[in-house]
Order: sequence, then structure tokens, then C-alpha cells
Amino acid sequence: MRIALDAMGGDFAPGPIVAGAVEAVRDQDDLVVVLVGDQERIEAELAKAPGAPRDRLPIVHASQAIGMDEKPVDALRKKRDNSISKSWGLMAAGDVKAIVSAGNTGAMVASALFAGAHAKMFLPGVRRPGIAAIFPSHQGPIVIIDVGANMNAKAEDLYQYGIMGSIYAQEILGVTSPRIGLLNVGSEDDKGNDLTRATRALFQESPWAARFVGNIEGRDIYEGHVRVIICDGFVGNVLLKAGEGAVEFLFATLREELARLLPNLPVDAGQKIAGSLKNLKSRFEYEEFGGAPLLGIRGACIICHGSSGNRAIKNALRVAYAMAEDRINAQIIEQLGAKLEASEPTAEAEGDGPKS
Amino acid sequence: MRIALDAMGGDFAPGPIVAGAVEAVRDQDDLVVVLVGDQERIEAELAKAPGAPRDRLPIVHASQAIGMDEKPVDALRKKRDNSISKSWGLMAAGDVKAIVSAGNTGAMVASALFAGAHAKMFLPGVRRPGIAAIFPSHQGPIVIIDVGANMNAKAEDLYQYGIMGSIYAQEILGVTSPRIGLLNVGSEDDKGNDLTRATRALFQESPWAARFVGNIEGRDIYEGHVRVIICDGFVGNVLLKAGEGAVEFLFATLREELARLLPNLPVDAGQKIAGSLKNLKSRFEYEEFGGAPLLGIRGACIICHGSSGNRAIKNALRVAYAMAEDRINAQIIEQLGAKLEASEPTAEAEGDGPKS
Repeated sequence: MRIALDAMGGDFAPGPIVAGAVEAVRDQDDLVVVLVGDQERIEAELAKAPGAPRDRLPIVHASQAIGMDEKPVDALRKKRDNSISKSWGLMAAGDVKAIVSAGNTGAMVASALFAGAHAKMFLPGVRRPGIAAIFPSHQGPIVIIDVGANMNAKAEDLYQYGIMGSIYAQEILGVTSPRIGLLNVGSEDDKGNDLTRATRALFQESPWAARFVGNIEGRDIYEGHVRVIICDGFVGNVLLKAGEGAVEFLFATLREELARLLPNLPVDAGQKIAGSLKNLKSRFEYEEFGGAPLLGIRGACIICHGSSGNRAIKNALRVAYAMAEDRINAQIIEQLGAKLEASEPTAEAEGDGPKS
Repeated sequence: MRIALDAMGGDFAPGPIVAGAVEAVRDQDDLVVVLVGDQERIEAELAKAPGAPRDRLPIVHASQAIGMDEKPVDALRKKRDNSISKSWGLMAAGDVKAIVSAGNTGAMVASALFAGAHAKMFLPGVRRPGIAAIFPSHQGPIVIIDVGANMNAKAEDLYQYGIMGSIYAQEILGVTSPRIGLLNVGSEDDKGNDLTRATRALFQESPWAARFVGNIEGRDIYEGHVRVIICDGFVGNVLLKAGEGAVEFLFATLREELARLLPNLPVDAGQKIAGSLKNLKSRFEYEEFGGAPLLGIRGACIICHGSSGNRAIKNALRVAYAMAEDRINAQIIEQLGAKLEASEPTAEAEGDGPKS
């Protein structure tokens, strides 16, 4: 299996990115990771890994890289030879079966939808791919989909996200028959906006009605009673970024608070507390799953967090490998197909417009 | 000034609610707090406050109370004599100038919009009132509006929320010329959905253009560089509840983590840490502002957190008093009026529908 890895994407690229690729190919004999990016810099990193199976770490040179803070659309337009577009080019050409990047998420998504739509890379029956992010909960990891691929989602899109997210949660997170909840502002059937009402109706008359628990609220997310939460890409993206912001803010204020405390504590106590905090913060990062998959495309695409280290990259490559083996995509196609026969998207299902 | 207080609303009602009212009238000589709820239970609580100025603590009996977890719409329909509806009745009748409740938020909002719309209690020029919630940030408290009053907001609604939120932040939070940010999924002008694009356009051609910083992302919220953040009620409500959930989850895991640690720490160290945590958690509760105001109505309405203690209730009554003095509402009317002449809501400004 050949997977394209954006070697230039990530806060610390290319160092930990290339290191993660080396670990991945060492773990998996039939894995080839195509390193896309600045040839010289990649060579320099590979030189630090003596004995790495270079035959399974080919390099595709890209003269440009998109910065983490660059405006995605502008950057894609200006930097034609960037490592993200080039990686998607390899996907579109069928040279690789999956793609992994810890780079500029906006650029990654824009590029994915562009390449995907044009190269007919969406799975049959899929209306729009969705990004599934992993959140922590008292019950373990949960999936929230979509967190940024689809800003004007229709009920039928959310329905598909529920199915795809559920299959992902089962196959990758190992949750048995994960239940699907609709992110909403209250538990009553008629709560929310036109989109949520239409989505609810669509699920209730579908083959997946049994898996669908109906509305859940923001505060239910971390309880983990529902392992797959669907929402449109705008809400999900705001939620994802606000969640990161909240955790950072909380740990920052926590550090302040404890710093004021430490001088009055025995040294070893201070060290133990610092250790605990580190331990705690790690619970909010799901490195073992590598990143957020873009569900609904042929093969696989994993979007990693910008701060990804070699471990996260290695795991993202492992997950991409598993997802590109087609077992998961086959299920998605089958389930969406079943649905599409059952009921075509209705006018109502399309309605997320204003009804004032 | 007469303010209606829902004595039955809140996790610990009526105890701390009545206690807060007693403190408030003791602080403010010309304040009359009308206690709405179960006469007997309120009397019993008042009896615990010997020497309370009973003449400024009249009781209006309501035989029913809506539980915190009851489904708002159902509950309002079934319990006609509930303390929330009765409080709004007093507002509509002009018997009180403000209303405060720590009860079922959904019921409070539904009741507010119903009573407000029917009794012409919206301020002139206001399209739809919005709920302004206070979030913590590195720069101090910030305002996010709307967090649940308006589920299908138009650009013109968000524009008004920006103005009202900015006036509130200045007058109540004491922020000088607070800047307004549009919650979005990226910083580029064309980011987001039809609603955000229309809102952005509306601000840029408005008298408030200088105060408007454009798009901000979820992770910027807690930085506090922008003190007023506007979004539609669906996004804001999900954000508010998810934020509460995240903080609770984080403190729960933090407690676990430290519990594992404490046995190995000297007792006083453990106590100091527990103290710090309490101190820290309090930073996430803005009791000094009492709760979230519903902006855009005549007089004032403060929706308090269900867990509000007497201090929060006292402060909510103080804020309600200040807001009902009309200085703030006069500014809102003036600013919205200025805008309404400048540009009537356009078709584009109305458009938050699907453009697929």
C-alpha cells in the first residue's frame, strides 16, 4: 500500500513527520510512504535514521509549503507547487491510496474537496465528505462529524455523516454499535433550526433509526453516552476550535494557579503535580488515532493536528492504511446505497433555509 | 424600581434565591423585589431573615414551578400558573421594570419571546432580542451573543447583537469601546456560510465598521482580544453548553488525577491544592454579573445559572436594576435607529439559506 505524506505540514515539520514515516514503514512491511515536500530537507531528516528502508520511503519534490497560519484559499492559489496539492495530485492520479497531512487544515480540506470533486474521488452515493474529529469523554473517545468540510450542510449530508461516523467509530475506535446523536440546543423533537428538524425526520424513517438517539446538547458531549455526534461543518468547526481554546486556557490558568502554590510545597510534591498535569493533558490528545479522517472519499485521508509528533504521524499512517484497505469504505457504500434506495433526499430534507 | 424575581427557579430554590433578594433590597433603598412563587415556601425563607424589609419584598403567589430538566415548551403549556410565566405577566402588565430568574433557561426564553412579542416589549428597532452570555478570557470577561434566543438569525439580527453586546460590555463589564468579532471558521473574508458573509458585509458598510474586527475563530474566544463575539443562537447555545461540559469534564479528570496523587503528598499540600482548584473554578463563574441578560427588550431581563447562590442572585438584581434604568436601552435604541435609517435590511442580509 502506498500512502502520500505531506512532509512539510505541521508545526515541527519536516523532522517528526519524516521520523513518523520511518517508524511506520518499519512496522508495516508492505507500506510505502511517499514523502512529499522539499527533497533536500527530507533527505537530511532521512539521513538521521540510518538503516531506514529507503526503498519504501520515496520522495516527491514540492518546492513550496503552505504555512500553518496562511489563509488557505490564497495560499493554494499563490503556491501552485505546494506539498498538499501535490499529495492530492498523487491521490487523483491513483499513485497512492491514502494521504496524511499535519499541515494547514483549511488548505487540506479545500484541496481535498477540489481534487475529490474533480477526480471523482468521492465514494459512490456520498453527497459531501465530512471530517470526523475525535473528542474525549468519560466513556472514551467520541466522534464529532462534520467539523469543517461542509458549511451549508443539508439533512441528507448529516444523515450520511451519522452513518460514516458510526462505521468509523466501530472499525477504528472499536465501539460496538455506536449510537448517533444530533447536536442541538435542546432535547425536544421540535428544537433547533430547520436543518436539525429535517435531519431528525430523515433518521427516524431510515434503516438507522434504531441507532439514532435524537437530539443531544453541548453539555452531553463529554458524558460519552453517545459516541457519534453529527452537526454541520460550521458548528462542528467552531466547537472543535473553541474546545481546543478552552483546554489551553484552562491549563494556562491552572499553571498560574499552581505556580503561586509551588513555592509553599515540597519540591517533590511540585514535581508530582507537574507530572500529573502532563499526564492529564495527554488525555485530551488522541495521538493513538493520529488525526481526523475525511470520510466519504475513495481510499483514505487523515488530517493530523499541527502539533503532531512522530508517534501521531506513525499512528495516522497506520489508521490511513486500515481505512484504505476498503473494508470500511465498502461498508459505507453499502449502507449509503441501502439508504439511497430507501428514500431519495426530499425537498424537506434539503431545507436548511430561513423560514421567518 | 420594582423587579420580579422567580423565587422557584434554580437548583437550590427558593433558599438562596430569597436570600439573594433580601441582600439586594438591603443594599438598594429604592429597590422592590417581587418574589414570584410558592407563597408558603417563600414566607418560610423570609422568616430566616429577621429584620428583612418585608415592605420591599412582596410575594406574588404562583402555584406551579417548572423543573430545571422539564421540556420548556411542554412545561409552559401544562403548567399555566408557573412562576416564570407569572413573572413575565408582571413585566407585560408594567408592574415591574425587570425580571430575574435562575430557572429553566429554555422556559425563560420561550416565555420571554412570547410575552415580549405579544406585549410589544421589544425595544423600538429591535428585530429579535438576543441572550448575551459571559465567557472567561485572558483579558477578562467577554460577551458572546446570541446564545439561544434566535435559532434562525439573519445578518441584520447579528448586526444588532453586535451593537447591543458592545453597549452591554461597555456599560456593565466596563470595557472601553469593546471590539466586535464575528464567530466564523476562518479569518478570510469569504469564509463561513451565507449568514456570516452577509453579516460581514452589513458591518463593513455600517457606522459600526470601525468597531468590527471581522471573523474570529473558536480558539480566539479565550484570548480575549475581542470582547464581543456575535453568532446565531444555535451556534452560541451549543458553544455555551459545550464550554460548560468541557470545564466540568476537565475538573472531573483533574480531581481524579490529583486524588491519585494526594496520598503521596503532605496533608497541607493537599489542602492548598484543593484550595487552588476551588479558586480556579470560580474564575469560570462570573457571579459578579449575576447571569446572562436578554438584550433588546424594554426594561431588563437577567437569566441566571441554575446553580446560582445568593451572591449571584443579589448581583443579578443589581445588574437588572442598572439595565432597567434606561440609560443602556436608550443607547441601544439610538444606535439601532441610526443604523436602521442608514440601511434597511436587504435581501442579501436576509439570506442564510442554502446556496448549493
